[in-house]
Amino acid sequence: MGDAIRIIGIDPGLRRTGWGIVESLGNSLRFVAAGTVRSEDKAALATRLCQLHDGLAEILHRAMPHEAAVEQTFVNKDAVATLKLGQARGIAMLVPARAGLVVAEYAPNAVKKAVIGVGHGDKKQIHMMVKVLLPKAIFDTEHAADALAIAICHAHHRQSVAYRMAALAS
Amino acid sequence: MGDAIRIIGIDPGLRRTGWGIVESLGNSLRFVAAGTVRSEDKAALATRLCQLHDGLAEILHRAMPHEAAVEQTFVNKDAVATLKLGQARGIAMLVPARAGLVVAEYAPNAVKKAVIGVGHGDKKQIHMMVKVLLPKAIFDTEHAADALAIAICHAHHRQSVAYRMAALAS
Repeated sequence: MGDAIRIIGIDPGLRRTGWGIVESLGNSLRFVAAGTVRSEDKAALATRLCQLHDGLAEILHRAMPHEAAVEQTFVNKDAVATLKLGQARGIAMLVPARAGLVVAEYAPNAVKKAVIGVGHGDKKQIHMMVKVLLPKAIFDTEHAADALAIAICHAHHRQSVAYRMAALAS
Repeated sequence: MGDAIRIIGIDPGLRRTGWGIVESLGNSLRFVAAGTVRSEDKAALATRLCQLHDGLAEILHRAMPHEAAVEQTFVNKDAVATLKLGQARGIAMLVPARAGLVVAEYAPNAVKKAVIGVGHGDKKQIHMMVKVLLPKAIFDTEHAADALAIAICHAHHRQSVAYRMAALAS
């Protein structure tokens, strides 16, 4: 796929971190791979963070994406859950950044808007549209599907930015 | 200091992460070093997490501690602040864990109890007691002082565990 841009989307979570990779070229979008990095529930927190780190680092090493995108997650649950998510999210942002990738962040409604067309909608609608936009997509968990939605969102945004810049230059 | 155990305490924060290193041998405790790793306020989040990572990794590389301890921080502020702290805390736990260190976690009142003698007290009392317990301690920020308090707490706990195990074996 010539000068295609390979994008990794990451949906962070301490138990399960989803990842999804797409290639974007012009208007076309192609599914590359998706999956879930797991940490052991019973392991010490530091060990679990290492497991997430090593899992993501291996995927980056294998798939060599050019850019990364992570959802700006907000939790409405308690502070303990938010802290846990934050810890996983720290790792999810660190790994691509250390590999030299720019890491974009998108609010949940921006992801929904890019995938469904509107800024609201449930998980089912998102996953259905991921399958429509990426017919060959295979994902093992909802986290992997969410990660693909984040990657799609980044593909749309970076392209609209490129269009605007081209329009300004012409 | 013969078979002294070198302990790094870490007080995580996105803007400033404090670190403090002590050596523990028998009942004695010795100050080694303390400082603060800073991230640039205006940098992208992923860049800031890299700055924290690289700063902590360099300290571990130079000081070669044997064990690490991090406070089980709880934030009573909003979810955004908790998420930020979580991200920094993820890095603070990942770096020593990846270096092969066991990373202990202590609740704030355990740290206070180890340093002040009771489970409550303000920051000033903690910093004063850090100076009493480690007369040679020099710290540039409150975060570094807090990190030393965490290291002291770990030194006390690991020793009481050793005593209990020796008592059980005798």
